[in-house]
Amino acid sequence: MRFLVTGAAGFIGSNLVDRLLAGGHEVVGYDNLSTGRLEFLAAAMAHPGFRLVRGDTLDPTALAAAMAGVGFVLHLAGNADVRFGTHYPRRDLEQNTIATLNVLEAMRAAGVRRIGYASTGSVYGEATVFPTPEDAPFPVQTSLYGASKLAGEALVSAYAEGFGFQGFVFRFVSILGPRYQHGHVYDFLRKLRANPQRLELLGDGRQRKAYLHVDDMAEAVLLAIERAEDRLTILNLGQDDHCTVLDSVGWITARLGLAPEIHCTGGERGWIGDNPFIFLDTRRIRALGWAPRHGIRASVEATLDWLTANPWILEAKP
Amino acid sequence: MRFLVTGAAGFIGSNLVDRLLAGGHEVVGYDNLSTGRLEFLAAAMAHPGFRLVRGDTLDPTALAAAMAGVGFVLHLAGNADVRFGTHYPRRDLEQNTIATLNVLEAMRAAGVRRIGYASTGSVYGEATVFPTPEDAPFPVQTSLYGASKLAGEALVSAYAEGFGFQGFVFRFVSILGPRYQHGHVYDFLRKLRANPQRLELLGDGRQRKAYLHVDDMAEAVLLAIERAEDRLTILNLGQDDHCTVLDSVGWITARLGLAPEIHCTGGERGWIGDNPFIFLDTRRIRALGWAPRHGIRASVEATLDWLTANPWILEAKP
Repeated sequence: MRFLVTGAAGFIGSNLVDRLLAGGHEVVGYDNLSTGRLEFLAAAMAHPGFRLVRGDTLDPTALAAAMAGVGFVLHLAGNADVRFGTHYPRRDLEQNTIATLNVLEAMRAAGVRRIGYASTGSVYGEATVFPTPEDAPFPVQTSLYGASKLAGEALVSAYAEGFGFQGFVFRFVSILGPRYQHGHVYDFLRKLRANPQRLELLGDGRQRKAYLHVDDMAEAVLLAIERAEDRLTILNLGQDDHCTVLDSVGWITARLGLAPEIHCTGGERGWIGDNPFIFLDTRRIRALGWAPRHGIRASVEATLDWLTANPWILEAKP
Repeated sequence: MRFLVTGAAGFIGSNLVDRLLAGGHEVVGYDNLSTGRLEFLAAAMAHPGFRLVRGDTLDPTALAAAMAGVGFVLHLAGNADVRFGTHYPRRDLEQNTIATLNVLEAMRAAGVRRIGYASTGSVYGEATVFPTPEDAPFPVQTSLYGASKLAGEALVSAYAEGFGFQGFVFRFVSILGPRYQHGHVYDFLRKLRANPQRLELLGDGRQRKAYLHVDDMAEAVLLAIERAEDRLTILNLGQDDHCTVLDSVGWITARLGLAPEIHCTGGERGWIGDNPFIFLDTRRIRALGWAPRHGIRASVEATLDWLTANPWILEAKP
């Protein structure tokens, strides 16, 4: 089958592209290279089953052209930066919601009817049930990012109902692993390279998170697409465990052989809309036969090792 | 206080404008008159506390200009037609979601921080709990309309969290009463005027709905704004009772003295995305001291009487 992968040059996208190609699929990668990196597609570019389209999800014409012969769309492109939503209030809506409508409309015009959508555990807002199941109480959004992803999910659902699409909505925790290029491990490593003696953490460091390795995430996505047959499948992807930000800092500094003074800026949340506890119930995806192979600590360490081996990633950004 | 009411010339908007003016408030009405009617604002136009701005919620500049001196925004403008979402897939997103971001951004720029948002019971999709409480299980959207309103709610929530707004989200059932200009009573009356002998119903007629009178809705909105103090207040507005479409048809034909042959097109839903059962839990708004004064049958009859007395409404449309 031919897949269209939006955000193909991103962290998650490029990992999925490699997996799809290894599985014998054809892949059209779609990326505007605003945050994606051609380096991540080096292996794919050498594969005869891969083609890259440089296009923007806000460009309906380019999207329409890319749909030819496609059987399944993995729509991963979007703004992934939760933290600066309030600095650019239109960005999340444009890149995560309007872009999703554009993808769905291009699919409809081309007769493509299967879509996997990269959503987020952030759609639960500040959950009241832990671990949080897919049918948790009606969430209250606390970030523009969560709001825009919830809206994207809602569009996928409405297209499943209204146009007979088959939709998959994946609500991820934070993903770690090779090609990771933003998030706490990235930030901490950059800070420690600038000053190995002192590390500042946003919040009180006790925020609890459940990071998942990108290989486990990719495995879950492909398995769900293969096995789930409902018109709409909504799946949490996460760990059955969680750690604190301070745990993660401990693993990182130990791995680096550093012992910096830790300074926490204080407060339960690292920033407005930060969620002090993300812990998703993964029974649904496990019932399809999936289990993660990498624990949280191993995922943090794998990320750190990859970043250390690829310092250009750390240097390329301001 | 000065209110900005978007959709001021609409059914619900014009009723709220009259109530606000009667309560001694100043009102800036904002409407593009695409579905709103100047006739509905005849009384308001004669009131010194009212000013109408002809503007579109997709026009950020006009919105910004209208915000001067405003203390509270009632954002009611939007596409209210659930049924034809799949015919115009971008319309709901533009008019209900992007427009809401525009309103919030214009408010932020002008330092206005209180907003009431007209949402809908449709955000529950096909609910699994009845009566449906505000914290019902995470909904699955079945219409582009519901999806776009859910997204609008999510934006209001994110602005409450991110920018210190005070937000009110009102999830309405279908509203009836004077100035009603679309929906089942309107459709049935038009059909019966064309052919008093036969009436066709979409679906099996057993869809259950809980219609609310616009006066009761307006009362609830004003009371909530006055009494609720939380950063974000989400309120169902509906009846503690429900009827079937066939009940409503019986009341309408009895009131008109007609006995048409009833033909149901069949199926549990009248159209794609139609919800066969809408029945909201109203304990939250009742706890603030509200109770509806009009029953469902009385609301249907009041609507019918108003339409009968204002036949131009029925004739003005295709």
